[in-house]
Amino acid sequence: MITMQTGPQPADFADVRATNLAVVLRHLRINAPCSRADIAAATGLNKATVSSLVADLIERRLVKETGMTERRIGRPATMLVLDGSPYAAIGLEVNADYMTAVAVDLAGDRLLSWRRAFAGSSSNPGQAAASIAALAKRAVAKVEKDGRRTLGLTVGVPGLVDGDGIVRIAPNLRWRDVDLRSAMRKALNEPPYPIEVENDANLAVLAEQRYGGFADAANLVYLTGEVGIGAGVICNGHLLRGSRGYAGEFGHILVDPTGPVCGCGRRGCLEALAGIGAVVSRALPDASASSPTELEPEVEEVVRRAKAGDPKVLDVLAETGRHLGYGIATVANLINPEVVVLGGYFVPLSPWLIPAAELELASRSIAPESGGTRIVASHLDLGAAATGGAARVLDTIDSGRLPTR
Amino acid sequence: MITMQTGPQPADFADVRATNLAVVLRHLRINAPCSRADIAAATGLNKATVSSLVADLIERRLVKETGMTERRIGRPATMLVLDGSPYAAIGLEVNADYMTAVAVDLAGDRLLSWRRAFAGSSSNPGQAAASIAALAKRAVAKVEKDGRRTLGLTVGVPGLVDGDGIVRIAPNLRWRDVDLRSAMRKALNEPPYPIEVENDANLAVLAEQRYGGFADAANLVYLTGEVGIGAGVICNGHLLRGSRGYAGEFGHILVDPTGPVCGCGRRGCLEALAGIGAVVSRALPDASASSPTELEPEVEEVVRRAKAGDPKVLDVLAETGRHLGYGIATVANLINPEVVVLGGYFVPLSPWLIPAAELELASRSIAPESGGTRIVASHLDLGAAATGGAARVLDTIDSGRLPTR
Repeated sequence: MITMQTGPQPADFADVRATNLAVVLRHLRINAPCSRADIAAATGLNKATVSSLVADLIERRLVKETGMTERRIGRPATMLVLDGSPYAAIGLEVNADYMTAVAVDLAGDRLLSWRRAFAGSSSNPGQAAASIAALAKRAVAKVEKDGRRTLGLTVGVPGLVDGDGIVRIAPNLRWRDVDLRSAMRKALNEPPYPIEVENDANLAVLAEQRYGGFADAANLVYLTGEVGIGAGVICNGHLLRGSRGYAGEFGHILVDPTGPVCGCGRRGCLEALAGIGAVVSRALPDASASSPTELEPEVEEVVRRAKAGDPKVLDVLAETGRHLGYGIATVANLINPEVVVLGGYFVPLSPWLIPAAELELASRSIAPESGGTRIVASHLDLGAAATGGAARVLDTIDSGRLPTR
Repeated sequence: MITMQTGPQPADFADVRATNLAVVLRHLRINAPCSRADIAAATGLNKATVSSLVADLIERRLVKETGMTERRIGRPATMLVLDGSPYAAIGLEVNADYMTAVAVDLAGDRLLSWRRAFAGSSSNPGQAAASIAALAKRAVAKVEKDGRRTLGLTVGVPGLVDGDGIVRIAPNLRWRDVDLRSAMRKALNEPPYPIEVENDANLAVLAEQRYGGFADAANLVYLTGEVGIGAGVICNGHLLRGSRGYAGEFGHILVDPTGPVCGCGRRGCLEALAGIGAVVSRALPDASASSPTELEPEVEEVVRRAKAGDPKVLDVLAETGRHLGYGIATVANLINPEVVVLGGYFVPLSPWLIPAAELELASRSIAPESGGTRIVASHLDLGAAATGGAARVLDTIDSGRLPTR
């Protein structure tokens, strides 16, 4: 559960110190290596404050001195970099056809990245939770074997997750009211670190903000290109969860009241027309696309045929791009983001999807030049939600709430 | 232009003081009368700090001592209330068929509230700016005659306003690229106070947040019920403007590709079906609804016939409610707000619109119980956008940036 602040709150000196620790960590994340004097100059904090903050960070092994110095007039400066070598943050993603696990250190360097096929849509919630917990256990064992302490673990799921970590609805997993957080805590023997469950698109957009080159986009939308299509939305620089955590249900925008039945039970939802299952079954009517196996090889076949100029496949992709553009226009009219990032299986299909989506966006946008909204493919690999799960754990540290010693 | 912060910023003592001044002002706005000790107890600030902050606020005549005391053990406490008697904040709204002006003092008490018919859709931008400026001049003259200083003036318009106060598109006023802020500054002889131009729905949602009883709704949507339908959106407690200030274009959600032509030139937009012009012309086909005169009497006639059980009018209102519910479902799926407030002419029609809209919202929401999103009618009168314009001016003070002496 991500908390939010409404209205001004009293500032006291503990808040100021946490804020300033956060400023130093963020400055180092972007600019390291740099000296204490560099930090002071760039942040406006005085040198004594920076020294005290850095001492605190070094003591917790979040920052280290490199020994490297810079040539300058006067005394040589000791350079600082993020350390975080004793820590690991873990993210997992479960989807209709695969699971992923990612672990990163505090500098954001990836410690592991695993992907495995998973018949999510044909497992029952108990089996699924056991499979996810088994993957989590292996990831934790791996980082702890390497001498690291697990700071936290976040699981991304393609569905509505409430503030208690209960998955209320995940249509493409056929889940309702699954208390995944408790199941995970139990399967991992009530570990000392926090376990969170979040919507996969919310985690993916956090990953894009942190690692995707969109740190400056205050309004950013990520679309998961899976069997379902969820949106992760950042507004004014912060993740939008909405009142109960159910924001971002992009896939259920109504496109065609006479369209195919969606996983949610309604007709003509965007994801029933433009989700990857629909795309594969229309582009490869000969393939057994209804099987719950991994869709990766089928998407590769669609790409191969598109590259070869197969007119049937090109038609399907152009139509899919138009459907996406229609949905993106609705989002652009309502939220006016700088960027909409296509993720998941949309990434390899993006050369064919984006031009059609851009035309539709331009024709349906009320704002001039589509309000400046750009459509791009993610540069992160398929583990965006898992990477974002790990990033969620790092956010706690970056906001100046340091791990206890 | 409302600025935003992304990521942590260094906190220094000037920031802390501004934050704390804001905390004290906000506490007084909600809880006055109260004592310095009450403020210290409620905010966690120490008593010496509260005394110093209050002294600063009293010196600027933003707060005053009432002389009233409270019975308690020990020394009687002097009670404090917001003062602001030397100041006025002014908001104006221009729409397709009327203009309004509102002035409030710092305590939020209304100093004036004017409404006049205005043929917005048949005036050219120069004539319109001159009419708005004339109304603004009269409002400024009124508050200054009463010995108040004008802190600022904000004009709400039903259209896309960029960060420079230029109205890029206002379909129902037939404006394109109108530099209303410069025109207003010139017409008011380059006054010493700031003049801002904002989207009317953005201002109205700020008014709902401040005066409408929705201060606790971190995610709040206001729909202007005018010839057009704009949305003002608050996410995570803050106004959503989007990357170029074009967020909230609710009225141009596509409902029916074969529907009537919209003011924006496209077909089947929500406002072409559910905007008040469309409602009146369908409900009262005998009336000359295409005239650019004020729609107020025609809306009153629709209400009269609905109350009398006129089946034709009831059908039109039920259909309009369904269209609104469809649009609200899209917003609810994407943003998951606590509340959607119907404003403007939708207020008198709300007894007939809301039940139909609620049914449609429930059937199209992916989240259980519509994600908790409620649809309510505004309790503010028709001047919500103008009231919000004045509130925008007060926000500057409430964020701790006090007027210079």
